[in-house]
This record gives sequence, C-alpha cells and structure tokens, in this order.
Amino acid sequence: VNFASDNVYGVHPKIMSAIVEANLPLTETSYCHDEGSKQAEMELSRIFEKDVKAFLVLNGTGANSLALSAIAPPYGAVFCHEESHIATDECAAPELFTGGTKLVHLRGSAAKFSAETFKTSIGMTGGRGEHGPKPSAVSISNVSELGAVYSLPEMAAIAKIAKQHDMRVHLDGARFANALVSLNCSPAEMTWKSGVDVLSFGGTKNGAMMLEAVVFFDPILAKDFLHRRKRGAQHLSKGRYLSAQMIAYLKDGLWLENARTSNARAKSLAGWINQIPDVRISQPVQANEVFAYMPKTLYEDLEREGVHFYEWPVEDAQPGETHVRFVLSFATPEQDVERFGALVKKLI
Amino acid sequence: VNFASDNVYGVHPKIMSAIVEANLPLTETSYCHDEGSKQAEMELSRIFEKDVKAFLVLNGTGANSLALSAIAPPYGAVFCHEESHIATDECAAPELFTGGTKLVHLRGSAAKFSAETFKTSIGMTGGRGEHGPKPSAVSISNVSELGAVYSLPEMAAIAKIAKQHDMRVHLDGARFANALVSLNCSPAEMTWKSGVDVLSFGGTKNGAMMLEAVVFFDPILAKDFLHRRKRGAQHLSKGRYLSAQMIAYLKDGLWLENARTSNARAKSLAGWINQIPDVRISQPVQANEVFAYMPKTLYEDLEREGVHFYEWPVEDAQPGETHVRFVLSFATPEQDVERFGALVKKLI
Amino acid sequence: VNFASDNVYGVHPKIMSAIVEANLPLTETSYCHDEGSKQAEMELSRIFEKDVKAFLVLNGTGANSLALSAIAPPYGAVFCHEESHIATDECAAPELFTGGTKLVHLRGSAAKFSAETFKTSIGMTGGRGEHGPKPSAVSISNVSELGAVYSLPEMAAIAKIAKQHDMRVHLDGARFANALVSLNCSPAEMTWKSGVDVLSFGGTKNGAMMLEAVVFFDPILAKDFLHRRKRGAQHLSKGRYLSAQMIAYLKDGLWLENARTSNARAKSLAGWINQIPDVRISQPVQANEVFAYMPKTLYEDLEREGVHFYEWPVEDAQPGETHVRFVLSFATPEQDVERFGALVKKLI
Amino acid sequence: VNFASDNVYGVHPKIMSAIVEANLPLTETSYCHDEGSKQAEMELSRIFEKDVKAFLVLNGTGANSLALSAIAPPYGAVFCHEESHIATDECAAPELFTGGTKLVHLRGSAAKFSAETFKTSIGMTGGRGEHGPKPSAVSISNVSELGAVYSLPEMAAIAKIAKQHDMRVHLDGARFANALVSLNCSPAEMTWKSGVDVLSFGGTKNGAMMLEAVVFFDPILAKDFLHRRKRGAQHLSKGRYLSAQMIAYLKDGLWLENARTSNARAKSLAGWINQIPDVRISQPVQANEVFAYMPKTLYEDLEREGVHFYEWPVEDAQPGETHVRFVLSFATPEQDVERFGALVKKLI
Repeated sequence: VNFASDNVYGVHPKIMSAIVEANLPLTETSYCHDEGSKQAEMELSRIFEKDVKAFLVLNGTGANSLALSAIAPPYGAVFCHEESHIATDECAAPELFTGGTKLVHLRGSAAKFSAETFKTSIGMTGGRGEHGPKPSAVSISNVSELGAVYSLPEMAAIAKIAKQHDMRVHLDGARFANALVSLNCSPAEMTWKSGVDVLSFGGTKNGAMMLEAVVFFDPILAKDFLHRRKRGAQHLSKGRYLSAQMIAYLKDGLWLENARTSNARAKSLAGWINQIPDVRISQPVQANEVFAYMPKTLYEDLEREGVHFYEWPVEDAQPGETHVRFVLSFATPEQDVERFGALVKKLI
Repeated sequence: VNFASDNVYGVHPKIMSAIVEANLPLTETSYCHDEGSKQAEMELSRIFEKDVKAFLVLNGTGANSLALSAIAPPYGAVFCHEESHIATDECAAPELFTGGTKLVHLRGSAAKFSAETFKTSIGMTGGRGEHGPKPSAVSISNVSELGAVYSLPEMAAIAKIAKQHDMRVHLDGARFANALVSLNCSPAEMTWKSGVDVLSFGGTKNGAMMLEAVVFFDPILAKDFLHRRKRGAQHLSKGRYLSAQMIAYLKDGLWLENARTSNARAKSLAGWINQIPDVRISQPVQANEVFAYMPKTLYEDLEREGVHFYEWPVEDAQPGETHVRFVLSFATPEQDVERFGALVKKLI
Repeated sequence: VNFASDNVYGVHPKIMSAIVEANLPLTETSYCHDEGSKQAEMELSRIFEKDVKAFLVLNGTGANSLALSAIAPPYGAVFCHEESHIATDECAAPELFTGGTKLVHLRGSAAKFSAETFKTSIGMTGGRGEHGPKPSAVSISNVSELGAVYSLPEMAAIAKIAKQHDMRVHLDGARFANALVSLNCSPAEMTWKSGVDVLSFGGTKNGAMMLEAVVFFDPILAKDFLHRRKRGAQHLSKGRYLSAQMIAYLKDGLWLENARTSNARAKSLAGWINQIPDVRISQPVQANEVFAYMPKTLYEDLEREGVHFYEWPVEDAQPGETHVRFVLSFATPEQDVERFGALVKKLI
Repeated sequence: VNFASDNVYGVHPKIMSAIVEANLPLTETSYCHDEGSKQAEMELSRIFEKDVKAFLVLNGTGANSLALSAIAPPYGAVFCHEESHIATDECAAPELFTGGTKLVHLRGSAAKFSAETFKTSIGMTGGRGEHGPKPSAVSISNVSELGAVYSLPEMAAIAKIAKQHDMRVHLDGARFANALVSLNCSPAEMTWKSGVDVLSFGGTKNGAMMLEAVVFFDPILAKDFLHRRKRGAQHLSKGRYLSAQMIAYLKDGLWLENARTSNARAKSLAGWINQIPDVRISQPVQANEVFAYMPKTLYEDLEREGVHFYEWPVEDAQPGETHVRFVLSFATPEQDVERFGALVKKLI
C-alpha cells in the first residue's frame, strides 16, 4: 500500500503502448522537430480553445523553471506561496534557470494565497524601487502544494492584480488535470480566461513516463523558447517519445479519466480517515491528496505494516503528533484504500 | 534636517584628507596590490586580534554578496531574517553573485531571529534532502535591519547551531561599528569568538566615501577570493584610494568615535520622540536608528517642513498611521535633533 | 536513407523491452532512489573496474553541464576544443549550469587538441592572475566532434598537464562506446587510468531512449551531486525507466555491439565515398561519423533523392563546395549505405 | 619610470578638487539620485548631441558587463575579439552579469576584427539554430586591446552587419577619449552615428578615481537599468562623489586634453623604440599604448633599472624574445619617456 507520491506509480498502459509504437519508424526527425510534436501542439490548442505555443519538456522542475525564465527578468521578483513547489522542492532550480530571479514568498492557508496578500506584497517589494527586485510575475499552483484547489474567481482575482501591475501570470499545473476535474470547468476557463499567461502542464504525475509541457497563451512570451529549452537541457533528442506520450495522454480524455480516478481515491481515503479518532484532516481534500495530523506512533505502526506515505512537517503539530501526506494515483488500487482503512481500524 | 539615511551624509574630513594624500605619489601599484592594501589588512588583523584575510570592496551589496558566494554553493541555502538587507534591499544581488543560492527567510521581532527559529528552519529545509537547497550558511545582521543589536550570547547561539550542521556564519556588518560600541565588546568578541567565519565590515555608512571589506577569519574560505572580487567587479583599479580610506578609518579609533556619535544622536532623538503623543517607538533603539509609528499627517507635515526621513512600511500599522525610520549619522548635527524636537512640539 | 544524426534512429528493441518491463511493478521508489539505479551504478563500477559514483541523467547536454559544474568554479576556466559540443552545440548550457564558467577554446585538427596546445593556453589564461578565469578543468571529447578518436597516450598527455596544474579532467563520452571499440581498450583504460576524473557516459546516441550517466571516478567530486542534478532538473521522478535502460544497455555487451555496428557502417560508407571523384573525406574515420567536402550540387541532388545528412560548415571549403557530415547508427541498415553508394554512382 | 598601466597613475588634480568640493554640502541625496548625477547625464547628452540615458558605475568591468546584460539575453551570443578585455581580462564577469551569455571570439590583427569575419561567425553560430546561442550583440573595443583604433568606416561596417541580423552594438570605451582624439571626430560620430547602441564610457584610465558610465543611445535599452546596476553592486550610495568626477572630467574638455597628452606620450615613446635595434613595434601606435617584441634580457635589464612595464604574451614571439606593453598616461612625465630612451641606449 503506497501513498507516498504520484511518482511511485508507473506509466498508464495506453501511454506505454504509444511509446512502443513510436519506436516503429526507422527514423524520425530529432530534437522535438518531429511531426508528433507539432501534432501535440495542435491537440493542446484544441483543448485550450486557443492557438497556443507548446513545448514538451522533461519534468516539472524544468517546466516551471523555464516558464518563469520567460516571464521574469533576473532582476525581477516572482511572487508565490511560501510552501509552493518552486519555493521549497525544486532545490532552487527556478533561481538557476531564471538567472537569480527572486521568489517572494506569500502566506495563506492550504498553500494558497489571496489576491489581497499578493497586492500587499507587491507594494512592499515594489516600493523599494531599484533596491528591491522588480515585481514581474506571479506563480499560482493549482492544485496547491497542500492539495487544495483555487476557485476560478480566486485565480482571476490574483491575475487581475498582476495585470494592474504589468506582471505576468504562471500556473504550476503539475496536477493540472486534478484541479480541472475538481473545478469541473474547461481548460480555457482555468487558464487564459482566468488570466494565465503560461502554464506548466503536467503529465508525469498523471500517467506519463516523463512529460510536461510549457504552454504559452501569449505567443510573444514564447520568443526564443527553443533556445531556452535547449540551454536548460530540457529537450529530448529523440523527441518522438515525448510527443507520443502527449498525444496518447490527451486522446479520448485519458488525462481527465486518470485525474477523476485519483481524485476519487482521495475522497475515498479521506472518508476512511474521518472515521479515525485522533487523526484530523488538515487541508481541504479537493484533488488527489490528503493531509492530516496523526499520532506519531500510528504513523510508525502503519509504516511498519507496509503502508508507505510521507511525513510532511508543519510547525503547528502538537506534541506526539506528526503531519502526513497521502497521495493517490490513477493507479492506486481501490483495494489499497480499503486495506488502509481496515488496518487503521485494527491499529486504533 | 535629514534623517533619511547614513548615506546622505558625506565623508569624514580625516578620511577625505587621506584620499587627497593618496594622490601624491606619481604612481602606485594598481588593482589593490598596493602597499596600503597590505597595511589595511594588517590593521584589521590587529583590531580583530587574529590574522585575517581582508579584501577591500566597493559597497555593502558587493561585500555581502561576495562573502556569501564564498561560503554557500549555488545549490545551497543561506538562512537570514526575512527583513534583512540581503533579503530585501539588494535587488537579489546575493542571488546573482552566488549563482542562485536560496535565501531562506526567518522571522523574529526587531529583524532579529533566534537560534531556535534558525534550528527549526534548518530541519524543514534540510529534511527535504536534495529536493531542497542544502543548508550551507547563515547570515546575521548586526546592527539588524530594524536598528536592534544581537547580544553576544544570541550570536553565539546561532553560530553554535550552524556549526552543528556544518554551516558557515556570515555577519553583515554594514553598521558593525555601531553594534560594537553598543555592545561595548571587542571586535574579536563580536566576530570569530562568537563563531563568525566571514564579515562584511562596513565603512561607508560610518564616514568613508565607499569602503567595505570582506574579512575572513578562516583563511581557507578566502581561497580564490581575488578571482571572486574581480569577477564581481568589486575591485578598484586605483586601489590606493580604497586602502587609504581604511587606514584613516581605523586610525586612532575614528571608526569607533563616529559610531559613538551616531548612536548617541539616536538616543537623543528617541528621547524627543518619546515625548510625542501618538508616536510610538517600535523597535529597541540600540544603535543609530529609530523606528516609530506616527500619524501619517504628522509625517507629511514634517516632510513639508524640510525634515527628511523615510516611511518604512510594516503590515501592522494602524489606519491613519505610518511606520517610519530615522537614521542618525556621525555627521548629523546635534542641533538638527533639537530642531526636530522643537518642530514636533510645534506641530502637535 | 538517413545519415543526419544518431538521434533520428529509435530505441534498440532490447532497451525498449526493458522499459516496458520496468512498468510491471505497481510501485517503485521515485526520484532515482530505486533499486535499479543502485544496480546500474554497480554495473558501471564493474565495467570500469572501480567503485564509481554514477548518476543517471536525461541528456548529454545535462550530463556535460552538470559534470563541469562539479569540477570548475564559476570563476574558473574549462579548456576545450573550439569545435567541441559543449562549446558550440549546447546553447551555452555549460555556462548556465556552472554559473558562468569560462570555456577557453583550443584549436587543433579533427576537433582534437594536443597537450602542448593545452599547456600553452593554461599559461596564457593563468598568467593573468585574477584578471583571467582560474584554470580549473579540461574537457576532452572522445569521439571528437569531427568523428576522430584520441589515442590513450594523447588523452594521458592532456590529463598529465591538467594534474600538473591542479586541474580536473572531464571526458565527454556522448559516443563513448564508439571510441572505446575503436581504441580496442578497456573502459578503465580509456577513463581513470588515463587520468579522467568525471565522464559523461552516453547511451542515447547508441540505442537508448534518453540515457546518460555522470560517472565520477573520484568520489569526492560527487559530493552534493544529488543536489546539483535536482537543481539542474536532470533527474527523472519515475527513475525506474532510466535505470532499466542502463541495465539493458550494459547487459551482455549490447552497448559495445551497437557501437561496433555503427563504426562498421561508417567504414563502409567511407569506402563508398572514397570512390567518388570530387568528394574528399576531411577527417579520420575512426568512429561512426564521416565528414567530407562535396560539390554543393551533389549535396542538393542527394537531398532531393531522399538521402538526408547535414552540411557542416567549415571555413576552408572551396567555392562550389560544401562540407558535410554523415552519422551512422547501430540501426542504420547496411542496405542504406549501399543504396547511397549506388545513388552516388548514378549522380556523378 | 612606470609604463605598466594607466591605473598606476593617480587622479587628475581638477577631478580631485571636485571630489573634495562634493564633500561640502552636509547632505546630498544618495544612491545616484543626486542633482549631480542628473547634470552628468545632461553633460553627456550635450557632448553626444543626443538625449542619452547615462548611468554612472564603478569600474570598466562593471560597465561592460552590465551594458552587455542589457543587450543580450542569457541564451544569446555576444561577438567580440578573442583578445578583447571582456574576453580575457575580466575574469568572466560578463558571463556573470549577463547570466551566462556566450562570448563568441573573433580573430583579427591588432585585436580588431573585420565586418567580414563578424559576418562569417554569425553564420556559423546562427546556423545552428537553437543548438547554438542566439546571435544578439557585438562588442567593439575602441581603443582595441592592442592599442589600435577602429576607423569610423570599420565601425560602421560592423554595426551594419549587426543591424542586418537584428543585433545590438556595444562599444567598450575604456579608452574612449584616446580613440576619439586619435580619430579626430565627434563623440556622436564615434558612437550612435556609427551604429553604437550602448557605450562603456571610461574615465578611470584617463584621470578619474573610479568613473565609468554606461551610456545608452537607444533609451529603450535603458529600461530597468537602475535595477541592473543595483543588483550588480555597481551603484555608489554616496553617489555625489561619482557625479562630481564626471562633471569635472567633461568640463572644459579635460577628458580630451588628458587623452591628447597620453596619446602624444605614446608617439614619443614609439619614436624612441623605433631607434632600438632588436626591438620591433608589433601593433599600430594609434592611442596611448605601444606594443613591441623585445629581447627577454633587455626586458629584464629594464625592469632591474626600475622601468616598469608588462610582458604581454603572444604566441608568435621568437625564442629569446618577449612581447611587451607600454601604457602611457596623461600623467606620465615627458622626462620619463626620455629617461627610458636614454636608458635603452645605454643598455643596448
């Protein structure tokens, strides 16, 4: 039973088949100039109801870091939640790829920040003139790093503040599909119609092998992005294995189906957890993750029983208590959730 | 009447004389390999009671940024207060000169953080393994960005945590002299005896034209620092004008005398302010700065009357209120403080 | 008929099978901490007859750039051939990942430089003291960018100069296997026994999907490399698909077999070319590439007939002439070489 | 007798006086927002017959590196002579400040490159598409690193090629005044009328203490340059001491007078050298430097006699011979040149 991460699960069979099929042609144009890459961009344009510029890259850290480099100068500031993935879990890759752009950290519950908090922070940073980094962009994570989902009005409010200050909007969509099915809206609504300029469109966590796309809704931002991707070593020379994944991922709504499954698993797990005394769900369960406070001893017992999930340290845990994260995948068997429930009942 | 910054005041006459005298020799070795630079290093060694490696540089931003680059790798984390100068007022120069090292922001009143807060944060960042930047160094500002002074035990406690985690300790001493005379200790006690590995030793704010030194107490850290300084464009080709300043600054305790004067001016100003109803001093007055909450209208009236000082935004100001900073210089006339007092009495 | 690049060909069936099999376990530890990654490191240690530290990464640009970042400081100089891949074809990724390390360009025929040239250049750069970047490392490409192979004595002579100057040695082995079978020596002889400290061990061009390893022969250099890889976005979260490739690549000498095939194809093609009047082979054919001067019209005719290969501009081409590159893959059909020969005969 | 560098000489008395006078006002606006800085910009606009944006900075390395950062992206290429100061003598500071922009090295005699060479190199680099850095800017040094001067048609031809490729033109004018009086043209002719977009306008070598300006002829390029300068630690907090230098430097043509003097000294020295058998002047003497081949023993004898100047290694020196550089300053006494002449006569 493994709730450690979306990434401990493998590749969806349909995507694996696509990879295998991509191997059939004896030769194919290299460096992501293959026909499949063009088709992938067209598919994304169709889905987003807009002519997008889309670049396939190798992982989420690469997607986020390169996307930010395209919208913030090295002397700029990117506003993001202090617990966001770019701020905490990418080993300062954004600082590398942007050339040292400052991430300004915002606070807010459930790893979401409000438009108001954002606005105040722009004032503080921008008020310093050239002594502070120049407010240049904002990065929203939807799903947030604590499994919560920004509503469309919340996103639009943040984007509005950004536009008022001539700033650009990035959306970290490592779990884009999970947020989308949770919001039950269209991809266009969740992105450019809400003011998003560039999106890290994630596929790896949701069934691909390694697949992210940097999707630009404003083509001017995509200028020279081929150079950026190459320089960031985020291209694949045998690019056909990337484009094949994207095409399969989008085909017949596989991406949405997977996200619906993993979100449902999270709801299911949350249902079990709600029945456990001494365990408190700490964040809204709106996508495919569950966060909870739990007695440290229970955590250890569960690990011993072969249930894998991570402690996720927070400062306000009580003595004897730990804070934990459960991640549910499209591939997490429903029985594993039930096995977990049964086990907890036994242990309590 | 000008309390805007230490930097609005000029150069101390003795230092200006030294600059003029440095012009007398027809030629002098360039690029800071002059005899004066060696002498400056010797003087600093004498003052710090240790053979230091000292490099003269051009400003505080350069000193801090280069010092950090010598103790933290690009994939590392430097812990500092969220309101510290390196975090807020150097336009991400530390990120530039270090190659993207992450500044991890710590909280605490008076722009000081505690050893405990520091320790917790190391655990949070370091616990992420390679997903987070590697805890590498800590930067203490003494005087703090809000005019407060770390006691020696406070500094030592932070340094102890750092050493336990194999991290290095930087001291931002842009107002080193002001902290030193406030603490009434020796330079050695305030630095290497408290666990400091490298110091940004400030002179500009305290009477020089442009003069900072990066002082290494552990010579191993100074390796290749000539390259770092050159690459950071922080050398002076006609280096004699830097070394002459340092020698004059240290001679006969001029640096301490200047700091005593400016600190005394701050105490004096704080005395006046304490008499004003509706104005509340917000930070401990321990060096040459005074911070206070003040009715916005009073601030505007004072500016109109030709009293210059800056608003210093904080989030907890009351409606109708602003938060302000007064900086006192060795050159601030005592009468200006009195004039301020008289003016306030008139306005209230 | 496609001689454009090794990368236009696909994945070797055995490696594709390994990828498919890697998908079988429901879950696997993520972020390259899987058992397969450990096994891959062990296999590499076996092959190199030394306990190496090996890190799987995503492409050659990433491998080279990260490897260099581990052996040269940002203020350092890396010496390399002016036509080397890191100098010309990685869009300054080495400069990005190293934080701005200077590549000092060396000249020499066949994209190889001599120990003597290297030594002279160290003197020129190092003689500038802190005004020049610090000579820190040398990067040898074997196979060279023009298809030639350094002999073991040539490599050892360069490495010897490096060691005398306290510099480190990097080997760009994007076509390591091709050089190895050409030299008919052991992997140990071609690397650490010749003075190499760190190797970019290539797999992609020789049959993998995306597979390179940074292999350290001196473990001290591998310090914090997990952080470097993460920060460079060169990890794969679902790392099992990388390690499976490496294991399959090394198994039963597949890597050597593929390289022998592609090298043989190049010899075969060179044989045909030698029979064509007006076409002159320009570089030693020692691995899987052939470079030649060719009438521009012939090049255009061949492209029109569906034979794909690239022009490779050089400054000394004659009027009416172009310089071209043919790359042969393990997967290039022998018949394609023959078809090329027949076609040329017809066209001439 | 010292011909080592322009920087071994001191500050011109008029400039030193200006610095001393700048100390008179009790307070002055800091961080280069003083009235003097505005006046300096106006003076530069007058001299260049155009409304320029001018930013005072601290040294030539800073000026060049920041200027390049404003005209070339991190994934770009800046073309320059392989012996130019930015390529060899700034310890890769341009790579630091630009975030890793590639310097593409051009060849040519007297450290000058031709428009033709430049054009060919653009083709080679640009032809690689995203695999090579994007051709973005060109940097001309006038005076060149070997003391030669580009004619106006030579500069214009290079700039024309640049414009045809949508590239920007930087002029490294560390010795701008020396080139200007040598060309006997107007500042406008030597800059924007010849196609220059941004100039590093040098003052330090020609009589100032530390004084360079980054001068933009196209105001759009100056966008956010205050941020760039701050982040690069190239501002002076007590900016009045910079602006005072610039105003004095330009006043009554002091800058031109100094340059005429130093150029004349070089001609005079060259005259002496031409009379020495076994010593051959190696470069055109067009500004304030003389380069020559010289018997190594003669060099050593001269140094022993107290004549200081540097060896300047070149690859084509004959056995027993060294290549040397003499730099003449506005402050080099005419008698020192004569003393040198007399001494050489004695030694030969």
